[in-house]
Amino acid sequence: MINAAGRDIPASIPGYHTVKPYRGPFATQPDGRMAGKKLAAFAPGRQKVLASLEEAIEASGLKDGMTISFHHSLRNGDYVINMMVEAIARRGIKGLTLAPSSFLDNNDKIIPFIEQGVITAVETSGARGKLGKYLTMQTPGKPTIIRSHGGRARAIEAGELHIDVAFIAAPACDRYGNINGVQGPAACGSMGYAMVDAAYADTVVAITDNLVEGMLAPVSIPMTQVDYIVQVDCIGDPKGIASGSLRYTSNPRELLIADMAARVMEYSGYFKSGFGMQLGAGAASAAAGRFLREKMIKQNIKADFAIGGILAPFVELLEEGLVKNMFDVQDFDIRAIESLRDNPSHHEMSCSFYANPHNRGSIANQLDFVILAATEVDVNFNVNVITDSNGVIMGASGGHSDASAGANCTIVVAPLLRGRLPMVIDNVQTIVTPGDSVDVIVTERGVAVNPKRADLLENLKHAGLPLMSIHDLKKIGYEMGGAPAPIKLSDEIVGVVEYRDGTVIDVIRRPVL
Amino acid sequence: MINAAGRDIPASIPGYHTVKPYRGPFATQPDGRMAGKKLAAFAPGRQKVLASLEEAIEASGLKDGMTISFHHSLRNGDYVINMMVEAIARRGIKGLTLAPSSFLDNNDKIIPFIEQGVITAVETSGARGKLGKYLTMQTPGKPTIIRSHGGRARAIEAGELHIDVAFIAAPACDRYGNINGVQGPAACGSMGYAMVDAAYADTVVAITDNLVEGMLAPVSIPMTQVDYIVQVDCIGDPKGIASGSLRYTSNPRELLIADMAARVMEYSGYFKSGFGMQLGAGAASAAAGRFLREKMIKQNIKADFAIGGILAPFVELLEEGLVKNMFDVQDFDIRAIESLRDNPSHHEMSCSFYANPHNRGSIANQLDFVILAATEVDVNFNVNVITDSNGVIMGASGGHSDASAGANCTIVVAPLLRGRLPMVIDNVQTIVTPGDSVDVIVTERGVAVNPKRADLLENLKHAGLPLMSIHDLKKIGYEMGGAPAPIKLSDEIVGVVEYRDGTVIDVIRRPVL
Repeated sequence: MINAAGRDIPASIPGYHTVKPYRGPFATQPDGRMAGKKLAAFAPGRQKVLASLEEAIEASGLKDGMTISFHHSLRNGDYVINMMVEAIARRGIKGLTLAPSSFLDNNDKIIPFIEQGVITAVETSGARGKLGKYLTMQTPGKPTIIRSHGGRARAIEAGELHIDVAFIAAPACDRYGNINGVQGPAACGSMGYAMVDAAYADTVVAITDNLVEGMLAPVSIPMTQVDYIVQVDCIGDPKGIASGSLRYTSNPRELLIADMAARVMEYSGYFKSGFGMQLGAGAASAAAGRFLREKMIKQNIKADFAIGGILAPFVELLEEGLVKNMFDVQDFDIRAIESLRDNPSHHEMSCSFYANPHNRGSIANQLDFVILAATEVDVNFNVNVITDSNGVIMGASGGHSDASAGANCTIVVAPLLRGRLPMVIDNVQTIVTPGDSVDVIVTERGVAVNPKRADLLENLKHAGLPLMSIHDLKKIGYEMGGAPAPIKLSDEIVGVVEYRDGTVIDVIRRPVL
Repeated sequence: MINAAGRDIPASIPGYHTVKPYRGPFATQPDGRMAGKKLAAFAPGRQKVLASLEEAIEASGLKDGMTISFHHSLRNGDYVINMMVEAIARRGIKGLTLAPSSFLDNNDKIIPFIEQGVITAVETSGARGKLGKYLTMQTPGKPTIIRSHGGRARAIEAGELHIDVAFIAAPACDRYGNINGVQGPAACGSMGYAMVDAAYADTVVAITDNLVEGMLAPVSIPMTQVDYIVQVDCIGDPKGIASGSLRYTSNPRELLIADMAARVMEYSGYFKSGFGMQLGAGAASAAAGRFLREKMIKQNIKADFAIGGILAPFVELLEEGLVKNMFDVQDFDIRAIESLRDNPSHHEMSCSFYANPHNRGSIANQLDFVILAATEVDVNFNVNVITDSNGVIMGASGGHSDASAGANCTIVVAPLLRGRLPMVIDNVQTIVTPGDSVDVIVTERGVAVNPKRADLLENLKHAGLPLMSIHDLKKIGYEMGGAPAPIKLSDEIVGVVEYRDGTVIDVIRRPVL
């Protein structure tokens, strides 16, 4: 069947539950009830702290065929995913579904455990490096399910992603099980992803290198949700968790794109005091924040809220009073982590609050602006951020489709050529974000407005931007880089890309390399 | 059948679900899963703010026979319970179960709506005044279910108390549905009770007199749980919500009891840096906090945490650094509300975090000390805080049995005579807190230690306290006030007192007055 994004989706996919085809950004409504965590009682005096990872695995009741989860807030510095998978493998447990909030490059180390059958299915926001390639070319047995951050929170709350045991890397944890992410040697800031896992997983095991005496505060994940605690030497490498200082781009192409993106915001019609925005963590997006800052000061316009993965430049906007409140699902640098810890206007939020489409309204749904990057965009404004030009998984869905759907003005920034490859093409390899929810494409050579947004196009006519049709953008790219060669694909489906509402927006077929 | 508190409980009670007899403070374990709220999706642009209470009732889908809930954090200043019940009655809806977190004196106004059949069942922590008498002598049709604060959170999370529509008085609310209790003319402080209702009720309606533009922060109840918002002129009278300043007792008997209670704490064996405590809001309990403060300073002992309904004297302990962190489920005065708003060491907690016995460990379960009041205590250390000497409902279960069960040292303070009636008697009229979980009774004439706590008795021998057996205490009281006359009771059960774990610890039979 052809879904609403124009993709041919099989009626059933081996290893995947019932296929619901994508029908449009807000067309699919939930029904039924939220999932409920297993009830439990912990009488006074019961100790949660166990002596070893092995004891915790034993106590958790983990068995063959179950689903385990992790958060990726320690990013490339995370030690816990690899450490736990190894410990689980040592106990001879097999056939697990591994469902972290995402993977980063350092998770290549789990490949041997997929090969050994310890892990036979993966559900994630994305994968990179060798792991991404492995999941595309070898596959663990079932197709990898790719979900957006909001889609994962939804799937957990709806019971579609049932977590048997959540292993939570905890930068600070007390003996009762209270956790936060702002204290300790491996502080990562917001625990926004893990909050959802903790609330719904049947068993929660905190892994910490910072076991605090007394009652921990602030509490990000409450002791009421945590079953066991294990103390380890180190949960992560601070250098990999957060960068010490932001690389401000000096790349002229990125600066040009950033300047144009800021001008799109300025002239969009939504640039009024009280707006809400998400700025991505990419260089052009961060730079756009700097240009926007100047416009805000000059025109005395203040934002009501900013959200997203937080970086130093957004912290500066908050500290300058240009943003009233910041809501934080994830942090990318030390300044952001310190701000979350110290600034009462900088608030931690769960990933469900951030972007779940099936609750009473996530904050992503209230955005005026979002600036997002892209690997590929097509002439229907569809965006790919998951597979590369060879069709190999190398990115992450992240909050891309969530913020795109929610924002009044969704701006996708990308260079027109990446290497020698054109970025605006006829058909993206994999649709992660449907063109229905993308408003403006900004490249260094031109700006294209989605024809569905005649109102926006009208507003932007006064912005002095090189406006052109998406087809013209494509043409320029093709003239510079040539038309991309088609990829040869097998029939085997190695990945299912869910839209945030749980429908299937696209599938990833194994390329014949 | 005779339950573990020695009470004869019928095997079935008309109008009440399956009777599970009380078996001991931690004997009954939960099974199954937590309840799940109805799933819903709110696309961007959907307005939650409705024009009137009538529109909200209509939109909520409220129908005959459903269960509605409220919180009592606005205390005697609350306008919302009466206002909503009246509005619901105007729409002709009948047969509702009314399940607020508690009632206060000002809820006498709902009596006519029970008489009219709008409300045909009540589940609450307690009731006072005319309403308490009405629920005892007339009854709405079904017996009133009395739950502790922790027991109510448990019942909601376990699905035993299923709330169809929660109406939440919101001191501050934005257009998206985010709520807090620390801003606005009717600020009440912690929203700890309502947090549980919002998370599990199928439909949540916020009633506010302070509709804030932009994204509200801090967020106590997230927009992700709130369906509709109605703006009204006034949700409550600040004078009734919080007292402006504490009445420090100068009653010599209260001071004597307070001094002895503080000495019990000092010599208990638990008075060491890092302890956790709950101090009640009664005069003797607050005064005990003052005596304890002197001991803490003198002996350089600091508490790790304090919890409970918060009052100015506890705020002072926090500000002086004698308490490291304060966790707050409810506030009793303006100073406490301001402290919650301004002091980063003063944390809001949900009622499940406070006292639910069936999660992975509430903070009440981690207490070293609690000081609690009592209406009656018996020679088995059972405590009554719900019915008066005539057997009429006039109090509230509150957190009494929760903190008693959780604390290492539970101290019950009470005058030996109240009016002319002895307070320590052979059998309390109604057991709310079982003697199994009570350690010390402090009266102005003597201190009795539960014989089960030989360790504590040994420690207290050095405290210079007038230690005596509970039977001696009873005897002194009877000599002064005479043995209380037995109450004549009918067979009709008008109240079911649930222990915090959902078992039946006692029933309230209609007195023949």
